Amino acid sequence: MKKEDVTLQESERIDDLLTHDLTIIQSDEVFSFSMDAVLLARFASVPPKGRILDLCTGNGVIPLLLTTRSKATIEGIEIQPRLADMARRSVRMNGLEDRIVIREGDLRELYKETGHGVYDAITVNPPYMPLNGSDLKLNSHQAIARHEIHCTLEDVLQASSRLVRPGGKINMVHKPQRLGDLIALMRQYRLEPKRIRFVHPRANVEANMVLIEALRDGKPEVRILPPLIVYNEQNQYCPELLEIYYGKKEGEI
Amino acid sequence: MKKEDVTLQESERIDDLLTHDLTIIQSDEVFSFSMDAVLLARFASVPPKGRILDLCTGNGVIPLLLTTRSKATIEGIEIQPRLADMARRSVRMNGLEDRIVIREGDLRELYKETGHGVYDAITVNPPYMPLNGSDLKLNSHQAIARHEIHCTLEDVLQASSRLVRPGGKINMVHKPQRLGDLIALMRQYRLEPKRIRFVHPRANVEANMVLIEALRDGKPEVRILPPLIVYNEQNQYCPELLEIYYGKKEGEI
Repeated sequence: MKKEDVTLQESERIDDLLTHDLTIIQSDEVFSFSMDAVLLARFASVPPKGRILDLCTGNGVIPLLLTTRSKATIEGIEIQPRLADMARRSVRMNGLEDRIVIREGDLRELYKETGHGVYDAITVNPPYMPLNGSDLKLNSHQAIARHEIHCTLEDVLQASSRLVRPGGKINMVHKPQRLGDLIALMRQYRLEPKRIRFVHPRANVEANMVLIEALRDGKPEVRILPPLIVYNEQNQYCPELLEIYYGKKEGEI
Repeated sequence: MKKEDVTLQESERIDDLLTHDLTIIQSDEVFSFSMDAVLLARFASVPPKGRILDLCTGNGVIPLLLTTRSKATIEGIEIQPRLADMARRSVRMNGLEDRIVIREGDLRELYKETGHGVYDAITVNPPYMPLNGSDLKLNSHQAIARHEIHCTLEDVLQASSRLVRPGGKINMVHKPQRLGDLIALMRQYRLEPKRIRFVHPRANVEANMVLIEALRDGKPEVRILPPLIVYNEQNQYCPELLEIYYGKKEGEI
């Protein structure tokens, strides 16, 4: 498909995804992707073809990045109309309408439309923070992306379990503090953790991110990959991070 | 207590624990401790006083090492008479009969004798390998120490949950491959993972050991500590490992 010019809304800008000439529409007021999404898009094992689904797709950063790693059709689902619209315009801007479909809707209801077990792989960078009814501006786009307002971790895993085929993979990024919930809920929904990578800001500090891959109906045996360290002792990105960001490292991390 | 001379059985030798002048009876044919036990004895959060229990205590290496970190009474339980006897002789040899009690028996039955919730902390370096009825010499001391012949992971966690007091801690070392089972079973027995440290032979390879602390009736939030790397790029022990082995690093790791 041909790349198209798109119209930007107020506060929006176009950022470079630093790989394969991809660009993306962002907004500090509405939604900008973080390192978490970039790492997940590189960590995920993706099938060479078939159907991939990205839950909580936001401005579509993960589907865009996954086009560089797979020939599969990639669907993204996003509950916020404003973000789904940003994602669709980014897809058009990159000429990727034949590779990526952005759905606007509730991930909890999607199986009613698609049927069970139809995706080969699912990726998800969900809201991290449990709702505790405190000082949230409930209608802010950012609050919805960060807090479990429209879906909980359990909703995400239940939906994933319904939507992925037996033997298909779920790849998720989350906060390591939730590891107990993550593993217990995954098992409850027959998603067996198989590959985990912890991300540490520096070699000598606690992890602040976890990348986790689970297999639908897999057998219980998990690999803990080498730690991914972000900054070296000189406060510079470690070589692996640079390679991930600038697309020089091929294959999954 | 005064240190005593002890009688060695065939194949036994006396090894130096490299800290606080402690020594231990070992045998390559019966039981020798591994790095796993040393790391667990340094990882475990131990109460300054009270009662600590070490399950699957083997030749008593963990109780011996814990005397350098706590004034608590330390009990070890071991199902193999030959190993319990080795452990008792090591305790006498170090003059620690007033600090360490070695019990010979089945950890699954211990609560009937002691009652529920009587220990402030529990440590355990259990058999790692599930039984799959294959090529095991079932009567070998080493097979019992390594394979789930007399107790499964679930037995260990159920016993721990009964024996520790509410708010008390369980510290365990295990294989990372079992992390899914570990976390799911811990939660089933109301032991909430709170602190996890993965051990990697080198910075760029997968973990081959996991140290995990759980809190009886704790709330779900876990910290993933910095990775513990054993060897540097020159195949030498990393500084932290040297400090752990030679006792120069104080406090828990």
